[in-house]
Amino acid sequence: MNASISTVPLPTPAEDLVFGLTRIVDLPGLTAVAGAPLGAEDIEAVINEAERFSRERLWPDSQAADRHGAVYENGVVRVPPAYKDAYRGWIEGGWQGLPAPVEHGGQGLPQSLWMAVQELVCAADMAFSLCPLLTAGAIEALERYATPEQAERWLPRLVSGEWTGTMNLTEPQAGSDLSQVRTRAEPAGDGTYRLHGQKIYITWGEHDLTPNTLHLVLARLPDAPPGTRGISLFAAPKVLEDGKRNALRCGGIERKLGIHASPTCTMLFEGAEAELVGEENRGLNAMFAMMNAARLGVGVEGVAQGARALALAEAYAAERVQGGRSIAQHPDVARMLAEIRSVTLAGRLLALEAGAALDRSRMAGDKGAEARVALLTPIVKAWCTDRGVDCASLGIQVHGGMGFVEDAGAAQVLRDARIAPIYEGTNGIQAIDLVVRKVVRDGGATMRGLIEEARASDPRLAAGADAMARATDWVLAASSRDPAAAEASAAAYLDAAGWVLGGWMLARAAAVDGRYAPIADFYLRRLLPRAGARLAEIESADSVLALLPP
Amino acid sequence: MNASISTVPLPTPAEDLVFGLTRIVDLPGLTAVAGAPLGAEDIEAVINEAERFSRERLWPDSQAADRHGAVYENGVVRVPPAYKDAYRGWIEGGWQGLPAPVEHGGQGLPQSLWMAVQELVCAADMAFSLCPLLTAGAIEALERYATPEQAERWLPRLVSGEWTGTMNLTEPQAGSDLSQVRTRAEPAGDGTYRLHGQKIYITWGEHDLTPNTLHLVLARLPDAPPGTRGISLFAAPKVLEDGKRNALRCGGIERKLGIHASPTCTMLFEGAEAELVGEENRGLNAMFAMMNAARLGVGVEGVAQGARALALAEAYAAERVQGGRSIAQHPDVARMLAEIRSVTLAGRLLALEAGAALDRSRMAGDKGAEARVALLTPIVKAWCTDRGVDCASLGIQVHGGMGFVEDAGAAQVLRDARIAPIYEGTNGIQAIDLVVRKVVRDGGATMRGLIEEARASDPRLAAGADAMARATDWVLAASSRDPAAAEASAAAYLDAAGWVLGGWMLARAAAVDGRYAPIADFYLRRLLPRAGARLAEIESADSVLALLPP
Repeated sequence: MNASISTVPLPTPAEDLVFGLTRIVDLPGLTAVAGAPLGAEDIEAVINEAERFSRERLWPDSQAADRHGAVYENGVVRVPPAYKDAYRGWIEGGWQGLPAPVEHGGQGLPQSLWMAVQELVCAADMAFSLCPLLTAGAIEALERYATPEQAERWLPRLVSGEWTGTMNLTEPQAGSDLSQVRTRAEPAGDGTYRLHGQKIYITWGEHDLTPNTLHLVLARLPDAPPGTRGISLFAAPKVLEDGKRNALRCGGIERKLGIHASPTCTMLFEGAEAELVGEENRGLNAMFAMMNAARLGVGVEGVAQGARALALAEAYAAERVQGGRSIAQHPDVARMLAEIRSVTLAGRLLALEAGAALDRSRMAGDKGAEARVALLTPIVKAWCTDRGVDCASLGIQVHGGMGFVEDAGAAQVLRDARIAPIYEGTNGIQAIDLVVRKVVRDGGATMRGLIEEARASDPRLAAGADAMARATDWVLAASSRDPAAAEASAAAYLDAAGWVLGGWMLARAAAVDGRYAPIADFYLRRLLPRAGARLAEIESADSVLALLPP
Repeated sequence: MNASISTVPLPTPAEDLVFGLTRIVDLPGLTAVAGAPLGAEDIEAVINEAERFSRERLWPDSQAADRHGAVYENGVVRVPPAYKDAYRGWIEGGWQGLPAPVEHGGQGLPQSLWMAVQELVCAADMAFSLCPLLTAGAIEALERYATPEQAERWLPRLVSGEWTGTMNLTEPQAGSDLSQVRTRAEPAGDGTYRLHGQKIYITWGEHDLTPNTLHLVLARLPDAPPGTRGISLFAAPKVLEDGKRNALRCGGIERKLGIHASPTCTMLFEGAEAELVGEENRGLNAMFAMMNAARLGVGVEGVAQGARALALAEAYAAERVQGGRSIAQHPDVARMLAEIRSVTLAGRLLALEAGAALDRSRMAGDKGAEARVALLTPIVKAWCTDRGVDCASLGIQVHGGMGFVEDAGAAQVLRDARIAPIYEGTNGIQAIDLVVRKVVRDGGATMRGLIEEARASDPRLAAGADAMARATDWVLAASSRDPAAAEASAAAYLDAAGWVLGGWMLARAAAVDGRYAPIADFYLRRLLPRAGARLAEIESADSVLALLPP
């Protein structure tokens, strides 16, 4: 029995990430076309360095960090002591700036490469990884919506990691429905504003890793129209330029199922000085800019937790002897390990595919790629995070009784992974976004394109592709005829799309490198039928609607 | 947001249990044939009383009990203070004796009725419910294997609840493979034995609710043959008849994912005085007697946690308003609630079906019923507990961000439910038991009988029944030709059987009472296709075997 995870190798295999980036999504070719060539050896060097950072600075302390947790006292939050050193390493390595613009101190590297780095960091310590993820979201929003003067003031500090960034969206009455936001922004007369209100579930809203944090906050201007068209985006630093504390504070942190070392804060804005970011009443657009990249990042968290579950389960199964042989040699345990391995690899490659589409769209202005990443984002977010939870649960099962004991580390993976289907838009919201917005937008053209590519990649995908094509027709018709029916079947449709597109990625991996053939075969024959089961649900939307309360 | 569960009604609806017992499995008819008639009004009275006990004495404190947890100090374990009063109520109500033989102070009531009571108790507080569950297992084993003198000494104390009972099987090197048990029993010369060894994962092995506990322990006699044929069963009380402490103690408790208030103990036997129970070297048989009833009880735990998840999610969804209406009215949330509701009801009725078969076998000596309960036991244990985890996870999802916060109670359901697929034989062990032992034993006859009953109950089950019949032929052939292949597909086979038989139960419910028709329709059209997906896996066993380590 492994009483500690310290003997287990770092979860995510760097070589799979290098393979995915160089041989599946062809990042070298993509960047060459875009005029910013990045060779396979550059990619490998970055991944290996990120792997080393994650393995040396995060992984060994991640279990102790969970046990320590974030501690709140009188408005101050202390995170696990080991995080100070880890965060110093994060800054020194210049990791936060990897995808950020060169003019603000970043390295301007592709999003898909950044996602690969995120997987390594998140697999090594999910609670820690959320801090840089939120900062990256803030950088995205400011890059697009801040004035040049604001950008110059804030971005270098965020890009270096000297400051962290947060997203303040949710309020007690405003979760998935942001039209209910009540936080007020009062003009102070000097071009600045004063924020009044309460935000909840603010990830890394307060901590002791950096001297300052820039809070991006959704709030309403006086006389703003009701609903989502009256919401503006503001930026409020924790510490003002003159060194004084701004009138905002952390009112407490949540006691949560997992990610114990990541403080989830209630933030109280009590007349906090703030600046408007972007146009008045257009805050939701800015927030979506921030959220879209974050959604791909959350999908990667699902993959990363699958990888963490796999590493722990494989190490345990190899050592644990029952019936005269290691349990890894028992067929039912091998089945569980294969399920975690294949699903995690499929998710990893699908996330990189979405990341590469984002790069192609941004670096080469490719409109088709833009539509593709828009379509893939909710699938990556929801399918990969649902699978992360499944894999974490299977990882526990491989351990038997030891899986339920916290010492083995498998239980932490389930506790941590469980948040990802919820935040940055619940997976239900993702499914509705996919069906009602993304598929409908171009009459299903982008989705059909993906389905046909999947079909062409391997004959074993033909049945799944056929069923997906029929289901796409159905959701298109339902979206115009009966939106409630489309919503009732949205989750099943998204899930089926994930299974089929995951199979497509593994088929491509197997075609490029025969070493991936056995795991692709396992997935395509044993797991892909799950797409069919979900697709069979779709046309029975009325059986859900019959159960709606009056 | 419900910051506390205290405003939520008790999870399991008593009326569904009464309906299942009286109108689906016809317990009144079954008991009348057996000459111990139990009317519908008797059944309803017992269920309503158990509902009241669970609602008043367990449910309100179950969240605080989880937070308090079991506390170990110097060999002593303290359980949550509220449990003292609850356990007193348990004794005063005579609940422990409900299924126990009348000659030892029990009420001799049917197993299916006892399972319904177990669901109510477990839904109200799973950690508490494990204590009586283990005692019931000890009673079962002693009833069958103790000498009349032993039975007279021990059973009245266990049946009244004055003492609790435990099962001491697992050792660090002996989990699923009990042949590795090393605990030694040395004859003391006076007909008693001295036990030496260490047992782990002993549920309620030590606590402060009762003055004494009878430990049933697997151990080896000197010169016993190796393997499972050299294991005997012993009984060792914590306190000897003369009032002295026996030489056994709790060495510590585990820090676990869930069931925090249920102490999971390491038990150290340091020359403990013990008596042999049953024949030398036949301990495994006695242990299986104990375990078989316990396995049905664990299946019920899965149902109970589904019920708990549903109650919390329904209450939250009814209150939480987003987009101008309660989220219960959002189709995707309605879909999740319908999934939890239908799966939990299917599991509840399937467990009662198995319990009734056990009653028919015991009370009327019905051989067909005996084969049926043997077949259904691994299905109920594994399918219902896997679904319990799914439902708990869906219950969190319905809550959105609040689901991840411990205050809402939804997170506890997942933490607690996750143990059930592991203990009393992991679900992988159940699947192998089903395929390699139960289906093969009669050449698939009992399974085919169930499949045909399912087919006849509703046309919507025809495709599932056809596929199950083909899969049964396949596993029968594989079991003789290639046992590893049978094992590689066993989990998928069991899972598919659960989906089909769960559909059969709901079809019967809908046929008997039209109020169940909408939820049955939802399950049969939207969830039943999952059986097909699992059945499609089965014939691809070779894709698992190709991945076995050399």
